[in-house]
This record gives sequence, structure tokens and C-alpha cells, in this order.
Amino acid sequence: MTQFINKREDIVAEAIDGLISASDGRLARLDGYPHIRVVVRADWDRSRVALVSGGGAGHEPAHAGFVGQGMLTAAICGDVFASPSVDAVLAGILAVTGPAGCLLIVKNYTGDRLNFGLAAERARAFGLNVRVVIVDDDVALPDLPQARGVAGTLFVHKIAGALAEAGADLATVAAAAERVIGGIHSIGMSLDTCTVPGAPKEDRIPAGKAELGLGIHGEAGVEQVDYVDARGAVAMVADKLSPFMTPGVTHAVLLNNLGGASVLEMQVLLRELALSSIGDRIGHVVGPAAMMTSLDMRGFSVSVYAADAEHLAALKAPCAPSAWPGVHRLTTLDVRALPDGLKPIKPLPSGHPETRAFLSRCCEILIAAEADLNHLDAKTGDGDTGSTLASAARALLSVIDELPLADHTQLCRAIGLELSQTMGGSSGVLLAIFFAAAGDAASSGTSLTEALKAGLARMQEIGGAQLGDRTMVDALAPALAALSDGGMAAAARAARDGANRTADMVRAKAGRSTYINAEQLRGHVDPGAEAVAILFERLRT
Amino acid sequence: MTQFINKREDIVAEAIDGLISASDGRLARLDGYPHIRVVVRADWDRSRVALVSGGGAGHEPAHAGFVGQGMLTAAICGDVFASPSVDAVLAGILAVTGPAGCLLIVKNYTGDRLNFGLAAERARAFGLNVRVVIVDDDVALPDLPQARGVAGTLFVHKIAGALAEAGADLATVAAAAERVIGGIHSIGMSLDTCTVPGAPKEDRIPAGKAELGLGIHGEAGVEQVDYVDARGAVAMVADKLSPFMTPGVTHAVLLNNLGGASVLEMQVLLRELALSSIGDRIGHVVGPAAMMTSLDMRGFSVSVYAADAEHLAALKAPCAPSAWPGVHRLTTLDVRALPDGLKPIKPLPSGHPETRAFLSRCCEILIAAEADLNHLDAKTGDGDTGSTLASAARALLSVIDELPLADHTQLCRAIGLELSQTMGGSSGVLLAIFFAAAGDAASSGTSLTEALKAGLARMQEIGGAQLGDRTMVDALAPALAALSDGGMAAAARAARDGANRTADMVRAKAGRSTYINAEQLRGHVDPGAEAVAILFERLRT
Repeated sequence: MTQFINKREDIVAEAIDGLISASDGRLARLDGYPHIRVVVRADWDRSRVALVSGGGAGHEPAHAGFVGQGMLTAAICGDVFASPSVDAVLAGILAVTGPAGCLLIVKNYTGDRLNFGLAAERARAFGLNVRVVIVDDDVALPDLPQARGVAGTLFVHKIAGALAEAGADLATVAAAAERVIGGIHSIGMSLDTCTVPGAPKEDRIPAGKAELGLGIHGEAGVEQVDYVDARGAVAMVADKLSPFMTPGVTHAVLLNNLGGASVLEMQVLLRELALSSIGDRIGHVVGPAAMMTSLDMRGFSVSVYAADAEHLAALKAPCAPSAWPGVHRLTTLDVRALPDGLKPIKPLPSGHPETRAFLSRCCEILIAAEADLNHLDAKTGDGDTGSTLASAARALLSVIDELPLADHTQLCRAIGLELSQTMGGSSGVLLAIFFAAAGDAASSGTSLTEALKAGLARMQEIGGAQLGDRTMVDALAPALAALSDGGMAAAARAARDGANRTADMVRAKAGRSTYINAEQLRGHVDPGAEAVAILFERLRT
Repeated sequence: MTQFINKREDIVAEAIDGLISASDGRLARLDGYPHIRVVVRADWDRSRVALVSGGGAGHEPAHAGFVGQGMLTAAICGDVFASPSVDAVLAGILAVTGPAGCLLIVKNYTGDRLNFGLAAERARAFGLNVRVVIVDDDVALPDLPQARGVAGTLFVHKIAGALAEAGADLATVAAAAERVIGGIHSIGMSLDTCTVPGAPKEDRIPAGKAELGLGIHGEAGVEQVDYVDARGAVAMVADKLSPFMTPGVTHAVLLNNLGGASVLEMQVLLRELALSSIGDRIGHVVGPAAMMTSLDMRGFSVSVYAADAEHLAALKAPCAPSAWPGVHRLTTLDVRALPDGLKPIKPLPSGHPETRAFLSRCCEILIAAEADLNHLDAKTGDGDTGSTLASAARALLSVIDELPLADHTQLCRAIGLELSQTMGGSSGVLLAIFFAAAGDAASSGTSLTEALKAGLARMQEIGGAQLGDRTMVDALAPALAALSDGGMAAAARAARDGANRTADMVRAKAGRSTYINAEQLRGHVDPGAEAVAILFERLRT
């Protein structure tokens, strides 16, 4: 699969430069490209214990993304999935280590152990105080004497980082790191392999299967399992972790996106984790977030750590790297009652013979125009404008004596509500808005004409139609404008003129005619505008 | 492609519950499942202007992930890529709106406009002060009168959110939102389509092509373009945005992951953006991060906004949602000189006839054993143990008169350095660590035997081999232990006994034999242990 990269051999250096460029000047790198790729804190004064980690690239944001106040002091970046050189590690150590010494946090992969280990020896020859801890949190192979280091490493970075930031000495920081390492357990699951830059994508996992017990270098999981759904996936992961979690003790859990799972999926997985067999042992959650990825792998990993109060405080301590998603309490859901008012209260009916007659007349006009309007609409649309309006008119007529006819404000609102419930399509919503907004305006004492103008304005605001866009607005706007001064006769003339003008409007900018080409539109009046014109013309007679 | 979901119709509700569960109790939801899915701030007291946004799901973390202090007050979540109902929007408005009123931030899609618009009217009927703003930042179709709302919406959320949090009134907040909307411009690019839950994945983009000008609902981009690399992709995006960016004015740029691009790729894209034709107009960066996704689409979008000082301050204001990645200055790279000490300084040579003779003898023994050790290794490995050791011995012999023979500390370190440069493989690094650590120990005045023991301990720490793991340690550890008390004769016996015992070790826990099965190992002495035994035996004679 194509990726957003340039030359394969430049990926890591380019990604580092991208990271540094938008770090507010918090990060710097050593001048060692292409072979030495070391990211360091720009504000580092060597006054405290330095934390150095790293390894192959392809796990971003780990590790460079976690360099900063309260976490790592330096990160050493190898090629994708390849350990950095001894020289690179040594450069990182020498660049940041002062009298307080340095802790190397190394994931348990042979290359990393050896290269970081030898670099530590070289650094010691300079008289530097360097300690090495090896992270081995993967429980995929419980019999493997040397478990891999995976996303649980973030717990080490964060807790040791908080202690170092607070000024703890190297022995204390290293002891804390060792204690964390002794307590973290992780396992990963994936539905697909990752895309290694420059290599063909391995098509290893068949449909309906998942791999359980993953490393973070694209290597196959320990087992292929049947995949049914998120719940089943989390159940398997929970089963693997459960033996390592002390009952009755709450754990911090890190939910890591291996790179290609969507945010939506990760949130679903988090819920399943909370509901899983280990859910009652989860007190805090880090993530879900991409922290220790395997490029673009559609997978996740879960790391657990029974952090005590001290280490929980260290997890919660502020830190600069924005890749750290924070630690949050897992709580029961706070579910609030729905607000009152969703079920609209129908206003009390009230009689007003003139209004009733006027409204009935409007409805009858639209019902009578059904066939003509459908016919017109068939030329430029789907031929249902007449039926849509007639149906709405029939519905209104059927409830006319339940309406608050004596109160313009309430009546407009009631019509809007009725239309929103009985008239389909966008036009139903827009007319509902028109009448509701008119009611809103009428409530402040304005005249009915002015209220209808306010309704039109709101309908235009929401619908987006302007004059000339070939919609009902082209008839309704001039009609309402004329109504104030010239009464119904003037309004009818204006509506008709406006409707007729739509036959020359061949470039619609809003409404359904947007999708129709000019030749199809030319010469045909917009059926919505025609409906308005018919209504006003026939009301006048 | 399989995804980490359960039933399709439950995805959105489950994802919301996941989000809320790990929000430290900051978030709550309304009790309206399955149709009304509204996330609200749990700490909200209605004392300030409420900000309500939302739309279809599938864009996570937008919008629910941005609910919290300093950003949204409530988010209304529809189904995947489908607008929420009027009732859902109304429920959200009613749940959070107090006397200060409410601003609805709506992305410009017809369904959202209509449903949010009508809900606003309904809410107004309750006497609530509700304003609506429509975000239309997409520049993919510059002639389209109603541009789509995409990731630039985050600028509105954040800036309006900061103002509302600070207590600004509705008119002020709405005016600021309108000003932001007037100034944001976005465009997206993708290398692949997204996987809509429950629908087959559309295979629309051929290899070597990308889509430019995307919406966020999986709809096709405005054009398919040739895709070469990240640089070319960003160049096309920059060309589209450039006409909307005032020269000489610095902009804030939001780099959004559409869901499926790896963190590594996003960092590469950020670098390209900084180096692109619009790079000199970028002052600040939000991201790269997944903010407004299109499920798992391997794509990105760039949104630009020429924020003035006031709006930049609002972008920088603290906020609770951890999905907001912060805004960071785009700076030139801070590149620091490599530390001194990477080029190891060879110690001055010094003569010491006895040491020279001893070291030469060691080397000659290993060279003489080359064939035998290779033969032994061929039975359980790749047959090169003898050659690896002999090559290293020859290399040492060739520089023996350049070594600081008179100083054990310096000599051990020099041998370690030589081995790290001339001896390949893990064994070369491990022996380099052995000698370097021995030198380290010798520097503190310990005897050579004790120093070698310290070297062994460090080698074991880094290499991970314990006694019984079928490595050279099984001969070397007893030999060094015997050396202190019984001299070379005892050491030789111990080394031989230890080496012989490896023939019975059939379950290796470290080193290369880990990968070989028991039957292949049984009865064969480990070649590394044999080398140690041969060395001590022949040194004795």
C-alpha cells in the first residue's frame, strides 16, 4: 500500500525533524544524520538524572514523542524496526548525562540490549554513572524466559520520568523503574499486519482471524485465534492478563493503538475492557491512544500495572510531551435524565373563524395544485413537489380545530411542529423552521408579515438559499416584501414575477437544482416558487 | 476488513460509553439511548454560553472527544456518517443551555444544517437564546457555493470554547466563531478509502493515485491525482491552500490524521508542510493528530487560519479534552553538535612482555581451534563460531603492539573496543561488553580476576544468559570462580566440566540455541563454552 513517505532511507530522520519543528522549541536533535538520530530536550541542564530510551523506529510516537519535561531526556532512533547503533546510543548518553547519571530504558530485544549495553559500557569509561533497565512486559509467551518489551514501557518512561524530574537520584529512579518493570504485563492483538516501508505487505491473517500475542515489529502473533467481535477480542486479552493481576487491587491500564485502529474502534475497545472480566480491577486508564505503535497495524495492546499511590502520583504528574494522553480514572457512567420539553406540548386549541377560513383556504389551494405542481416538478426533478405540499396541507386540515387559531405566535409554532412531523424531506424541515421562526418573531409583538419575514430569514440562514438560487425563496421573498405596502394583490404579483424569473435561473446554488444541469433547467419555473405564486394568486381572488 | 466493533447499530453508543468511562468523571451522557446520544460536560453549571456541536459519527474524536472545559459543552452524535435527529439536538441544547444562551456549531452538510436548525427553532420556543453558525472550510470545490465543513471546525471549537469559558456573552462568542469561520480553509488528501462498518470496502483509488479534495464521509475526492511521495502530496495541498493564505501573515495550521495514516507518516507530512511553498506562512501547528477523522481513512487534511493575537491566545488557552493536541510554534530545527567522545581515543601503547606473551598465546589458541570449533558449531548452529573467534584473535594480534599492555584497565577497555569494531554478531558485542566492563571494574583497583568476574556479570546482565542456558557462560563462570582459589589448573578443570555439562542442556533460555530443538542439541557441547574450555586448558599447558 502506498504511504505518505518520501525515500525509505530518509523516513526516520524526516519524521524526527517534523516532530522537532512543532515542539515549541522544546526538542532538539544531535547533528549526526544519517546514522545518529538522537532527539534531546532542548531545555536540559544535566542537573538531574537523565532518562534515555529508544530502539527501532516504526513505534511512533515512541520514543522521540515522549522526550520532554517529566518523561525522557533523550530518545535514540534506529531505522524502522532496527536497533540504533552503539555510536548513536553513546552519543545520546554523552549529550545529556551529567553528574546525576543516566538511566537507559531498553526494551527486551537482542539488538537493543546489546547496543544499549555496549554504549553504556563506553559511557562508563568516561566516568559517567549509567544504569540499564530492561523492559520485558509481554506475556504472550509466559514460558519464554526473555519476554519482549512492548507498550508497558510507557509506564516506565512516565513513572521514572516523574521521579527524575522531581530530583530523585539515580539509585532511586532505577529502583522505581525496576519495580515498575516487575509489575507491568502486556499483550497485543491485531486484525491485520503492518505495512513496512519498502516491503510488500504480508497477507498473513485470513478473514475471521486475529493474531494474539504480538510483538511490535510486525512479527506474527503467538497464536491465530478466531475473531468474532470487539467483546470477544477483549475477553481473550483479559484472559491472558488476568493471571498477572492481583485480585482486589486496582490497576492502571494502558490501552494502546498499534497504529491502524480507528479512534471509534479504540473507544469501543475501552468500553469492552471496562466491562470485561478484569474490568473491576481497573482503576485508571492511559489512553486509548497511539503510544507504542507498529506502524499502521490495525491492532491494540493492553498493559496493566498495579501502581501504588506513589506511582499513581507519578503517572498523574504533569509532563510536556503531548503524546502522553494522561491517566484518567475509570468511573461508572454518569447518565443524566433527558431534559423536559422533548415531547412538545401541543398548545390549547382556540377558535378564530377568520384565521380558520384563511388557513383552510391555503390548504385547499395547495391540495388543488397538486397535479400541476407534480407535472412541473417532473420536468426538472422527481415530480413530487405537488404531492409533498398537498400531503402536508391535508395533514394540517385534519388537525385544524386542534390548533391555537386565536394566537398568531402559538399558531405559527404549532404549524411548524405539525409540518416537522408530517412533511418529509428537506422542504418539510425548512418550512418547519420558517413557521417556528415566524412564531418566535411574533412572540415579540411584531406584525404577522414581519414575523413571516423573520421566518424566511431564518429559513434562508439554515437552508442557505439566496435570491436567485432557484428556490421557493425567489417567490416568497418578493411576495412578503410587497405584502407590507401593497397588500395581497401586490404580493401575488410579486410572487408571480419572482416565480417566473426562476425559469431563467440555470445555475442553482442551493437546494435540489444544484445537481441538475443548465439545459434541463432552462425555461422551467421552479416548482417550489410556483407553489408560492399559486398560493398568493389564488388567495387574492 | 474486520474491525474492532460489536454490532454495527451499537457502535456509536458503545464508543461514547468508552469515552465517558475514562474521562475522570468529566463527561456524562443523556439517558436517551439508542436514539439520543448526547455527551455533556459533567461539571457544567449553565453559567456561561454553552457550545453545542455534533453531526454524524465516524469522525472521532470529533465531536464528543472535544467536550470539556474550554471547548464544547455538549456533542450530539448521529449514526456513522448520518446526521443526528432534531430531537437529539434539541435534547443537547436543553440539557446545557442557561440564561447565557447557546451557540450551535454546525458543519455544512444539509442534514446537519436542517436538523440543528430546526432544533434551534424548537429551543427558541422555550425562550432560550440560541445562535447557529455554519462551518464551511473545505476549499476542494472553490466554485461550490456551499463548501463542506471539515477539520477546520476544530479551530471554531477551540477559539469559541476559550472565549465562552472566559465568560464572553453569546454575541461575542458567536461573532468570534463567525470570524474564525470566515478565515479557515481546509483540504484533504487520501491514499485509500475508509471502511464503513457493515459495508464492503470500496476499492476506488488505484495504486499510484491519491484523492485530493475529500469530505469526511468517505465520498470521493474532487480529483484523483498521481501520487508520488509525501513531498508531492503536500505540494498539491499547499497549492490548493495558498490562494487563501495572506502572504506575509503567519497562520495556524491544523494537520489532521483522517484516521489510518501512521504517526510516522504524519510526522513526515508535518516536515514537508514546514518545507512547502506555504511553510513560511505557518507560525503555529495543531497536531499532527487524529482530530476529525473519516473512520480509518489513510489520509490527512490541512486547515489554515490566520489567527490574530487574540485568537492565537484562545487556541493556546488550557482546555480539558485530551484529544486536543495543543498548538505549538513551528520553529527552525535546533540541531546540536555531537558530543565529544564518539571517536574513541586509542590509549597510548605501552609495553609489557609477559602480558604480550599471554595475550598472544590466547589468540593463537583460538586461531588453532578454529576448525574444531566450526565443526562443533555445525552440529547445532551455522558452523562459524571458530571462524568468528579466530578472526577476532587475528585482529587483536595484528594490533597487539598498539595496545596499552602495561595497564590492565586500559588494556581491557582497548580489547573491548577492538572486539566491538572487528568481531561481528551478538558475540562480538557481548565480548566487547565483557572486556569494557572488566576495564571499568579494574579502574577501581580490583584484581584482574575480580575485574573479569565483573565483566562477566555485566555481560550476563545485558545478554541475559544464566548458568545452564547453554552459552559460553557455562564454562566461563565456573572457570573464573575457580581461578581465584585454585589458579589456572583449577580454572581449566572447571571450564571443561562446565563445557561438558552443556551437552545435557537441551532447553536453552538465552543465546542462539533458543531457536534449536532439544533433539538437535542433546549430546553436543555448546561451541562457545567449548572455546572457553579449550582456551583455559591450553593456557594451563
